[in-house]
Amino acid sequence: MDPYLIQVNGHGDHAPVLDVHLKTNGTSISLGKVKGRKPRWAVRASEMSKTTFNPVRAIVDSMKVEPNPKKAMISLSLGDPTVFGNLPTNDEVTRAVKEVLDSGRYNGYAPSVGYQSCREAVAAYYNCPEAPLEAQDVILTSGCSQAIELALAVLANPGQNILVPRPGFSLYKTLALSMGIEVKLYNLLPEKAWEIDLKHLESLVDEKTACLIVNNPSNPCGSVFSKSHLQKILAVASRQCVPILADEIYGDMVFADCKYEPIATLSTNVPILSCGGLAKRWLVPGWRMGWILIHDRRDIFGNEIRDGLLRLSQRILGPCTIVQGALERILHRTPPEFYHNTLSILKSNADLCYAALSAIPGLQPVRPAGAMYLMVGIEMEHFPEFENDVEFTERLISEQSVFCLPATCFEYPNFFRVVITVPEEMILEACSRIQEFCEMHYQGAEGAQDLECDK
Amino acid sequence: MDPYLIQVNGHGDHAPVLDVHLKTNGTSISLGKVKGRKPRWAVRASEMSKTTFNPVRAIVDSMKVEPNPKKAMISLSLGDPTVFGNLPTNDEVTRAVKEVLDSGRYNGYAPSVGYQSCREAVAAYYNCPEAPLEAQDVILTSGCSQAIELALAVLANPGQNILVPRPGFSLYKTLALSMGIEVKLYNLLPEKAWEIDLKHLESLVDEKTACLIVNNPSNPCGSVFSKSHLQKILAVASRQCVPILADEIYGDMVFADCKYEPIATLSTNVPILSCGGLAKRWLVPGWRMGWILIHDRRDIFGNEIRDGLLRLSQRILGPCTIVQGALERILHRTPPEFYHNTLSILKSNADLCYAALSAIPGLQPVRPAGAMYLMVGIEMEHFPEFENDVEFTERLISEQSVFCLPATCFEYPNFFRVVITVPEEMILEACSRIQEFCEMHYQGAEGAQDLECDK
Repeated sequence: MDPYLIQVNGHGDHAPVLDVHLKTNGTSISLGKVKGRKPRWAVRASEMSKTTFNPVRAIVDSMKVEPNPKKAMISLSLGDPTVFGNLPTNDEVTRAVKEVLDSGRYNGYAPSVGYQSCREAVAAYYNCPEAPLEAQDVILTSGCSQAIELALAVLANPGQNILVPRPGFSLYKTLALSMGIEVKLYNLLPEKAWEIDLKHLESLVDEKTACLIVNNPSNPCGSVFSKSHLQKILAVASRQCVPILADEIYGDMVFADCKYEPIATLSTNVPILSCGGLAKRWLVPGWRMGWILIHDRRDIFGNEIRDGLLRLSQRILGPCTIVQGALERILHRTPPEFYHNTLSILKSNADLCYAALSAIPGLQPVRPAGAMYLMVGIEMEHFPEFENDVEFTERLISEQSVFCLPATCFEYPNFFRVVITVPEEMILEACSRIQEFCEMHYQGAEGAQDLECDK
Repeated sequence: MDPYLIQVNGHGDHAPVLDVHLKTNGTSISLGKVKGRKPRWAVRASEMSKTTFNPVRAIVDSMKVEPNPKKAMISLSLGDPTVFGNLPTNDEVTRAVKEVLDSGRYNGYAPSVGYQSCREAVAAYYNCPEAPLEAQDVILTSGCSQAIELALAVLANPGQNILVPRPGFSLYKTLALSMGIEVKLYNLLPEKAWEIDLKHLESLVDEKTACLIVNNPSNPCGSVFSKSHLQKILAVASRQCVPILADEIYGDMVFADCKYEPIATLSTNVPILSCGGLAKRWLVPGWRMGWILIHDRRDIFGNEIRDGLLRLSQRILGPCTIVQGALERILHRTPPEFYHNTLSILKSNADLCYAALSAIPGLQPVRPAGAMYLMVGIEMEHFPEFENDVEFTERLISEQSVFCLPATCFEYPNFFRVVITVPEEMILEACSRIQEFCEMHYQGAEGAQDLECDK
């Protein structure tokens, strides 16, 4: 007779959770297969899920955010240019996807690294004499986040370490720690427009260093490295034989008065995985279209890294095909005015914001040169009421209903980050509220101007 | 003076890869930070990338596939219903996405688990009295593959094991091994329409068993479990206190003469993560829209598993937002005729294929009841020329230009899988070629009919 049927018709599936013995008796006797295990429900979340930790969420969630009911909330916290509708994507971009939908030719599975034709389109767009690219050098991913995840996953083993900028985008640490990879933070220097402290960087390299993450233009700094600074970074990587993971999602998003240099165009021997995507420049972060550009002219990555990326891409089978199918048209038909318009808005917002905040006693904004952010130093000694940047920004919400991210989210206390993609009038209103807030809490003291050098 | 500048202007970045000493001297002296490390380029792919292994790719790539130039290739190997254009998705589905594009409201970042409104739409669609669902019980993912990846990642730690069907979809093993999770294969019984060998299943459970994967309807079998069989499976899970990962991507894709029961609707205490998506039923696998439905009416998963899934989802920030935005309309406005039409085509193809292959000496097809596949047993003793199913299918390509996946891809030797989404005339042509092939190589012997029972 069939013990399973009895269990079903009886209490098997309906036994109360606490009724342990009944179940164990039922099984261990009737089957004798349970090796003395006393079954009881004890489902735990995995270690990996517990070590996947987003510091921004943790800090923001811990903030007692009670905006001032008398003032409308202004959020300058989210790196999403689409929130306020003032920066729509271009019609060509949406039209391209609609064309793809009408064609009906992009509904099936693509290769896990992306359609060959779409990889070609990306390669053609970024190809240049100093850093040639072919389709085989492009891996399409589900957003730049997955590009970074795959790049880290192929380059580093648990127990190895990676070099990450401070201040820097929190995802690097979130991903690394969940993979058992150690994070070593190298300093950026606010007094040098957030250039890398190269001596500090090089001092962190050891035999377990798997890669160096270079984020240019920078989130949260809005800084853009000069050609000569990038060459110095490459010199360190070359001397130390450390490959580079270049987070260039803000590539080309630099203001008229400075130039963006893809780091791969300046290197002849350092192998580089450059991560990018449509999110920021084309203003569609939700579409989750990213890519890895493999630059390996000395064949140091070789087939091993390429094959590794291919195998890893097979886990979730790449990005949405209707966006893949639209890539060529998006990259090649989006009118230049669209990019210029976005940048002139960002530049004008950056200038307004920088000017307004510079005039506020106790604040030390750092002028940005690109991306969508501006970092502001807080001369904490002038705000003795607040213990740190988290408390400062917390109170800024409760009193002025202005929400800026405390730079503790980026491992950089006593600063806060302002997002400059919001409409001009909102920035101005926010700045005047920040001024009111600072004037209310500022307490004169000396040595303020030394603040940043103290770092 | 600045050692970095010298390195750059000098040979730093341009030093030949082999020129090791030059570089080490340059750095270890000028900086004294290198702790005696002699840098040289040695970039290796990570262990994880090496253990991420897709058996199907490995086996197929190893096949010497030279189709017969005199016969057009017919591929019955790929589980992609869109390949031949005979199964287009419904206009409502594409129109829904175009509406979303026009609205411009779904280009920004969604929460990493998906927009609340879209999670509500999925919950409302699958909600029923026996298995109630709310938005908070739905996690939107980048395809069903990521749903399965997240479900495994949250339930199992390295060193634990999961119970996986044999034959079964290869992704389970690919994902598990890359995460250091052991795979224990439980047998499906072809002679019982691929029901689970429950005694064998229960015998595999031990204290390290993290979850039981139940794939219904089944890839590669095309089988559909009866209500009573699902209850028996639940009884095992309940007795052994093992949560279930239900791969129900082929849910509702069953032929008129049988009924699909979501396993969660039959359980009152077993916690279940049900993985699904748009891929198969809505015929858009490339769109990468999947979901996890959390069924936990006894609060056994509790917040721990929910929080774990949320944290894990933050790694790549969820699926494409323009498909998310279209979900409600896709789920609620797609006309019923569309589903019926798809199923009647699949059913008729399945019947044709089953009838044709049943008549071929040496083959033992198993009649499917749903999904998109049909498994065919090869009486190997009647085909002494071929060592196994891989060689059999290999020669089927080289002689008849018909490509079926050897079931070794699914851990099930001496079978092959036929995809039944191809146009009718193609199935018929393929079957007649398979017949010609078998008649050519068949050698009479005894005991053929015992083949399957021998398993």
